[in-house]
Amino acid sequence: MEVKVVKHILEANERISLQNKTFFDEKGIVAVNLMGSPGAGKTTLLERTIEALKETTPMAVIEGDIASSYDAERIAAHSIPTVQINTGGACHLDGNMVRGALAELTLDGIRLLVVENVGNLVCPAEFNIGEHHKAMIISTTEGDDKPEKYPLMFQISQVLLLNKIDLLPHLNFNMERFKAEVLKVNPRLTVMPISCTTGQGLKTWFQWLGEKITGKA
Amino acid sequence: MEVKVVKHILEANERISLQNKTFFDEKGIVAVNLMGSPGAGKTTLLERTIEALKETTPMAVIEGDIASSYDAERIAAHSIPTVQINTGGACHLDGNMVRGALAELTLDGIRLLVVENVGNLVCPAEFNIGEHHKAMIISTTEGDDKPEKYPLMFQISQVLLLNKIDLLPHLNFNMERFKAEVLKVNPRLTVMPISCTTGQGLKTWFQWLGEKITGKA
Repeated sequence: MEVKVVKHILEANERISLQNKTFFDEKGIVAVNLMGSPGAGKTTLLERTIEALKETTPMAVIEGDIASSYDAERIAAHSIPTVQINTGGACHLDGNMVRGALAELTLDGIRLLVVENVGNLVCPAEFNIGEHHKAMIISTTEGDDKPEKYPLMFQISQVLLLNKIDLLPHLNFNMERFKAEVLKVNPRLTVMPISCTTGQGLKTWFQWLGEKITGKA
Repeated sequence: MEVKVVKHILEANERISLQNKTFFDEKGIVAVNLMGSPGAGKTTLLERTIEALKETTPMAVIEGDIASSYDAERIAAHSIPTVQINTGGACHLDGNMVRGALAELTLDGIRLLVVENVGNLVCPAEFNIGEHHKAMIISTTEGDDKPEKYPLMFQISQVLLLNKIDLLPHLNFNMERFKAEVLKVNPRLTVMPISCTTGQGLKTWFQWLGEKITGKA
């Protein structure tokens, strides 16, 4: 019985997520699901992305957190449409939560929607929310051994942002090992080393987003 | 029906966890559930703890990971009884997984068992495993805003190890804000700033463990 209930939940989520995706397609919006551990740098990456793209690319953000509205406040300060989802305990967003948030956003003319998932390297990987692309962010301070320990997130993502490379001189992080592990878990994953503090590597990420938006046009 | 199933799972977990606790009590073992995000420093803290205590305190470790046996290999290199649990996708350990691991450990004479949970700041907080104490570890690189964003883990822990304080000069981490947030979420939480790299602050943690073990004698 337990298995049946879980299957039922996943099927319902898939159905609602497809509805979200259809909604994005009709509006001409590219939707990105941004995932990673607490403190990997999701919100800071979003702030840098808004700063870089907001003149050319109308953007909106959905912030997912268990509690608090810290992240939405940080994003709203950049004057773009933002809504905060508080999951109230749940360890990931799902299609239904995102659908609820969409109803509270004015999305006319928006070309890019980034959904910042709950900080968690595990559970968000299991639930589609209607996104076109899944991007994950991990920081060098989390260590070079994560791909094989948390394989699903690496397997389902199209882009991996390796953040905080400015801290590498102070860390025991083996880049060759990390890249070799990524390759083993998902050979098609695009790895982008970045620093949200110094700005290093971010251009590649902005270009990647730009291509997805152009491709949608 | 879904709610009922969830309740049933939690009740079953509570029953098995109590059996684990009784087992620990009969053996005179203090059991600690060590939780934190991926890369917070759980395994490195364990290595430092083993180095410091193994002459005086017979110790065993259970390693919890979704996949891989990296962590158990690191711990086993220190010549103490170790077993790896692979959850195969599950985002936390539960009482039943720990019970299974106990059957594979020789625990005669052991005084301290540390169970390293799956790297996740959310889900492990919801499941007892039979431990006497819950300890959480978070690193300064994760940011000073985490207590209000992930409140449950902070609420159910007795000790909070704030790791990687050696990196503070390179980070934008406000210690006063962090401590104020901790205080709001759980005023009784003992905060120990540490660095597993430099060893700073670790003595306080070893003393805390020592007191728990002596208290059990």
